[in-house]
Amino acid sequence: MTLSFWFEFASTYSYPAAMRLPALARARGVAVVHRPFLLAPIFKSQGWNDSPFNIYPVKGRYMWRDLARICEELGLPMKHPSAFPRSGLHAARVATAAANEPWVSDFVAAVYRANFAEDRNIAEPAVVSEILTELGQDAPAILERANAPETKGALRARTEEAIALGIFGSPSFIVGSELFWGNDRLETALAWALGSGKTPRTVA
Amino acid sequence: MTLSFWFEFASTYSYPAAMRLPALARARGVAVVHRPFLLAPIFKSQGWNDSPFNIYPVKGRYMWRDLARICEELGLPMKHPSAFPRSGLHAARVATAAANEPWVSDFVAAVYRANFAEDRNIAEPAVVSEILTELGQDAPAILERANAPETKGALRARTEEAIALGIFGSPSFIVGSELFWGNDRLETALAWALGSGKTPRTVA
Repeated sequence: MTLSFWFEFASTYSYPAAMRLPALARARGVAVVHRPFLLAPIFKSQGWNDSPFNIYPVKGRYMWRDLARICEELGLPMKHPSAFPRSGLHAARVATAAANEPWVSDFVAAVYRANFAEDRNIAEPAVVSEILTELGQDAPAILERANAPETKGALRARTEEAIALGIFGSPSFIVGSELFWGNDRLETALAWALGSGKTPRTVA
Repeated sequence: MTLSFWFEFASTYSYPAAMRLPALARARGVAVVHRPFLLAPIFKSQGWNDSPFNIYPVKGRYMWRDLARICEELGLPMKHPSAFPRSGLHAARVATAAANEPWVSDFVAAVYRANFAEDRNIAEPAVVSEILTELGQDAPAILERANAPETKGALRARTEEAIALGIFGSPSFIVGSELFWGNDRLETALAWALGSGKTPRTVA
């Protein structure tokens, strides 16, 4: 079965998830589809105009320490970004335009690395362009596709689809009709994709 | 090193944590201290007068399904409680009075089981009394201690201490100066108690 990876580039815990997913999915033979979306409209509908980690600073302080521990454990570089959250809009448009390209997961990983390990401003189209060039892609051609009205509309539709699916945070994973939220659920979601998840007997 | 287990009886994910902790800690030789506290004053300071799972129903629906999957995986009984959240005040006073008793972890587990597997109203002193009796304890004597001004004051002080420690949810685990939040972090917290946690090189 396929695993759908729903992600917003501003999201902190999506960084380790995006870095871990390709190898874990490959090792298990699980196919991954990429579903970039935007959290801002979802947060706005809950009355939030900023990251919940900024709105609730006690939780925010914990999250940065927790993320640092997770990255240390995984051997992933991490640098507390000098600005947070950074808009993932331009990168999400590229990921939308490139969702079926063989290099999409490299692009996704590179954007997260830029944001959370290299302190680069991924909100700037110029930085997104640099990342594409570093990956050996034709940045101007891809950015033209990314900024086409069809792509913008597709990303808006994807965000509406996320809401309809009950998604409220990033990273989220969908396998069949099961939703999993958070880097901590990646292994569980992959197990469900292999048919070894246990459907609760409890009606919950 | 000692692991401090900070918990609020109304908290859903604290149920699997409370059921898992005793055996996991015993297997690793980690000493556990019990730190009952109340989340309501912490939530109130964030502007919440209810569980965030009720305030944000999309997240709430996900949580119940996620909890059901976790319990199924662990072989733990679960029943969606007919009321949520239920005040953990009376049970927390008992746990405060009994924090150093050898039966405290059995009491803690029994209250969570009553709330999330047996749909019993733990907010009622009579139910807390029943649970104590079922554990072979002298319920009237313990409830008298639990309702003494010193115990009420100790629970209030514990909640203030939780806030000072940066605790914002339940379950939380503290090892030295490291805070871990959530059932998902229990194994990591135990690893830190054994000295095998990795301090991040990143300043986060």
